[in-house]
Amino acid sequence: MLATIIYGPRDIRLEEVDDLVLASGTGEGGEPASGRDAIVRIVASCVCGSDLWPYRGVTETDEPRPIGHEFVGVVEQIGATVSRIAVGDFVIAPFYDCDMTCVNCLNGVSPSCVDSNWWGRSDREGFATGAAQAERIRVPHADGTLVVVPAPINDALVPHLLALSDVMGTGHHAAVSAGVSPGSTVAVVGDGAVGLCAVIAAKRLGAARIVIMSRHPDRQALATRFGATDIVEQRGDEGVAAVKALFEGIGPDAVLECVGTAESMQQAIQSARPGGRVGYVGVPNGGAELPIRTLFGSNVGVNGGVAPVRNYIDELLPDVLDGTIVPGLVFDLELPLADVAEAYKAMDERRATKVLLRP
Amino acid sequence: MLATIIYGPRDIRLEEVDDLVLASGTGEGGEPASGRDAIVRIVASCVCGSDLWPYRGVTETDEPRPIGHEFVGVVEQIGATVSRIAVGDFVIAPFYDCDMTCVNCLNGVSPSCVDSNWWGRSDREGFATGAAQAERIRVPHADGTLVVVPAPINDALVPHLLALSDVMGTGHHAAVSAGVSPGSTVAVVGDGAVGLCAVIAAKRLGAARIVIMSRHPDRQALATRFGATDIVEQRGDEGVAAVKALFEGIGPDAVLECVGTAESMQQAIQSARPGGRVGYVGVPNGGAELPIRTLFGSNVGVNGGVAPVRNYIDELLPDVLDGTIVPGLVFDLELPLADVAEAYKAMDERRATKVLLRP
Repeated sequence: MLATIIYGPRDIRLEEVDDLVLASGTGEGGEPASGRDAIVRIVASCVCGSDLWPYRGVTETDEPRPIGHEFVGVVEQIGATVSRIAVGDFVIAPFYDCDMTCVNCLNGVSPSCVDSNWWGRSDREGFATGAAQAERIRVPHADGTLVVVPAPINDALVPHLLALSDVMGTGHHAAVSAGVSPGSTVAVVGDGAVGLCAVIAAKRLGAARIVIMSRHPDRQALATRFGATDIVEQRGDEGVAAVKALFEGIGPDAVLECVGTAESMQQAIQSARPGGRVGYVGVPNGGAELPIRTLFGSNVGVNGGVAPVRNYIDELLPDVLDGTIVPGLVFDLELPLADVAEAYKAMDERRATKVLLRP
Repeated sequence: MLATIIYGPRDIRLEEVDDLVLASGTGEGGEPASGRDAIVRIVASCVCGSDLWPYRGVTETDEPRPIGHEFVGVVEQIGATVSRIAVGDFVIAPFYDCDMTCVNCLNGVSPSCVDSNWWGRSDREGFATGAAQAERIRVPHADGTLVVVPAPINDALVPHLLALSDVMGTGHHAAVSAGVSPGSTVAVVGDGAVGLCAVIAAKRLGAARIVIMSRHPDRQALATRFGATDIVEQRGDEGVAAVKALFEGIGPDAVLECVGTAESMQQAIQSARPGGRVGYVGVPNGGAELPIRTLFGSNVGVNGGVAPVRNYIDELLPDVLDGTIVPGLVFDLELPLADVAEAYKAMDERRATKVLLRP
């Protein structure tokens, strides 16, 4: 099978690798390790903004490894104890593996699953999962991780379903974490795929007014289509002042931080009104910590983290299926998997917001 | 009139000062500055843990100033435009002055009032307010700041009413900020007056289980009376492990941080379950900022700040009046105002949790 391997900065290769197989060993304490997994044929995957970090050398790549963590596909094989998933099912996976039976999954925080795993590594029993920019992937807890989409699947629906594997659920997490509810005033920091999905989420949760901070005309247009009511192009102190000016001089109730840099977090914290909340989902990049005295003085809360997108798929899927939300519009380039290196290049050079890949 | 003046570290003096008078000047733009204020005869005030900071020299005292920010009293004089408060009313004030008409007050964040003021300073129009460890005080926005307690006032009720000026509302803010609701599991970091009131608040909001972190038998006993179900004496990593062990190994839903040191905040953040929330009200003391990567990885939110106790008095007062909550039990020493220097000494030496003063 073909799989994308990252070797180091700007070195992405599509290679022929061994086919993934269902796990057949036994786990600790004599428990069967096999039986809970599935092999999925990938129908579509994509490149994430966070994939650009090792691509750009911001994070190190110690050794060549499979890459990609967002996918939808069709189940090809299942282990003996899998019961909720059947061969032939069209499924969505979150950007991590989880069992959905542990206390953290049941609390709605599936990325903290006690038996969680990231794609591209080996599971806790030592079996490779493979990653998503490939022809196939092995899913350790198929009953927990995968969500079945009711057939039939219209091909035009695929990008919107794929968005549920990460960016739509992540934007939703920013909005939920910031407490967006009917009538809320909202500012979104970041106009990438997650920021745009955060606009969708804020609108869907009933926000009365949504400001997107963006300098790109095409992203401004998409944000407006998704429900943004105002655009602020300034950044830094000017950006804060412009946002506050739109909301009685004090700022919005909720600010959705969808970038992850020290500057974007500062922008978010300073833009929120006294007593407001920042919902953040940008993976923290850089060493800056949160300024406790500023937060204390203004009563601005900071909530968020790794988005529990698996927990959110059940809620968001019906809205995708009936066309209420169309998050797949964030994909502005589609390429065959064979061109995966070009997909990274296009995103790195900002020629594309997010690239969808089809094996 | 007599007023307490702080001159510097461990230098607290009760002095005869000029009587406070209603403001009689005019403000900017020809608006009358006078007319909105009141003179209140103080019935009871107290010493706050934060008063110990200048007392201990942790914060500097640039020049001698009146001190004390918690009081209940009887209205003696009112300005011409005061309408909600009458001479003879028994009133509670929050630990700050606010108008309760601006956008931030209406949003429930009265410490961010656009015309707010701290006791002991001059108001924005240049008139002295005086402070609370005194015989009288001037309240700039009497209609906004003061809450009238329905007569008659039983003297035994005074400590419980006084607690609404700061510690009870502050403990409540920790619980509200952490999202405590019926069935929540809670840990309280700090067994001072605020921590003990946080136990009352968590119980009142329906928490199913409340752990107090405390090493003092008398405070443990009071916390238990207030509703604490468990006590953890360990601190640091051992304390975190002990708290987590009480809640399925993952920790409680909500942690109420009522101290304000870097160590207590770290204790709080590490004790919360994945997806849990820290509600913090301890005035940040020391340079440590919040660890964004830890928060991101665990989805622990941090909410809180300067407690909007004025907004909370309306909600909490009925429960004090009918005896449902008895926060005044946190006062474990009562002294005449003449002994104010001894009051500071007793708290500094930890012989008292919180001292009530009567002029």
